[in-house]
Amino acid sequence: MLYAEDLDAGTVFPLGCRSLTAAEIMEFARAWDPMPFHVEEAAALASPFGGLIASGLHTIAVAQRLLFDAFMDRTHVIAGLGVDGLRMTGPVRPGTVITGQAEILDRRLRDADGVVTFRTALVDGDDGSALLTQRTTMLVGRRPA
Amino acid sequence: MLYAEDLDAGTVFPLGCRSLTAAEIMEFARAWDPMPFHVEEAAALASPFGGLIASGLHTIAVAQRLLFDAFMDRTHVIAGLGVDGLRMTGPVRPGTVITGQAEILDRRLRDADGVVTFRTALVDGDDGSALLTQRTTMLVGRRPA
Repeated sequence: MLYAEDLDAGTVFPLGCRSLTAAEIMEFARAWDPMPFHVEEAAALASPFGGLIASGLHTIAVAQRLLFDAFMDRTHVIAGLGVDGLRMTGPVRPGTVITGQAEILDRRLRDADGVVTFRTALVDGDDGSALLTQRTTMLVGRRPA
Repeated sequence: MLYAEDLDAGTVFPLGCRSLTAAEIMEFARAWDPMPFHVEEAAALASPFGGLIASGLHTIAVAQRLLFDAFMDRTHVIAGLGVDGLRMTGPVRPGTVITGQAEILDRRLRDADGVVTFRTALVDGDDGSALLTQRTTMLVGRRPA
């Protein structure tokens, strides 16, 4: 297990890869963000993106799962606190390979826990172009004595 | 349809209501954020929250859907740009009534579009306590001449 003491600023966790199919993009968007360019091929073709793109929320969900698999599954997370500086910088299309890394930016140890901030940067695994960045702050347990 | 010209600072959109069942919370979290306190009743009982709570991502997804139904479905949205100041301030449990409002904070008209920032505040519909706040920036089309 990773505790607050283990999450030094500068620590980098490489993320795995995930891509979404057109069917997955439309199914997710129908539930949570049914804008026409996320749920209808014809509307997507006519949009400035020229084709179907994933809801930003879907990309954020992929980020969360990649973060879980990379380090949060073995981190003593008490709670998520917030997100700042979330920027969607490139469209995620069917088949776009979503990958990237997380880097610990800051850790403040307190009596009972630690406040840890990390930056997530998602990129297109094919051309390295930026897809999404965000800074997440979470509460992490201290290592038991 | 609502265009950038219609989204004056100070405009408020009341949001509808939505609650999540324990089964919905666990199913969503198994896909995107399978921390033990989101997917296992026993682990959730032993956590500082004393019971099952929704992934913050799930609450954000509910926010997105409430925003869609309140005004984004009839707004000429070109793209989401980013989110700042996202704070999760209260746990969402099975049956928690999620509601609230969105308020336009700022709009900058440009030649071809408008950059619109709005604040979303989710509250518990039963006691009014704060659940989540965030500031979202999006690109909105201008009214056709």
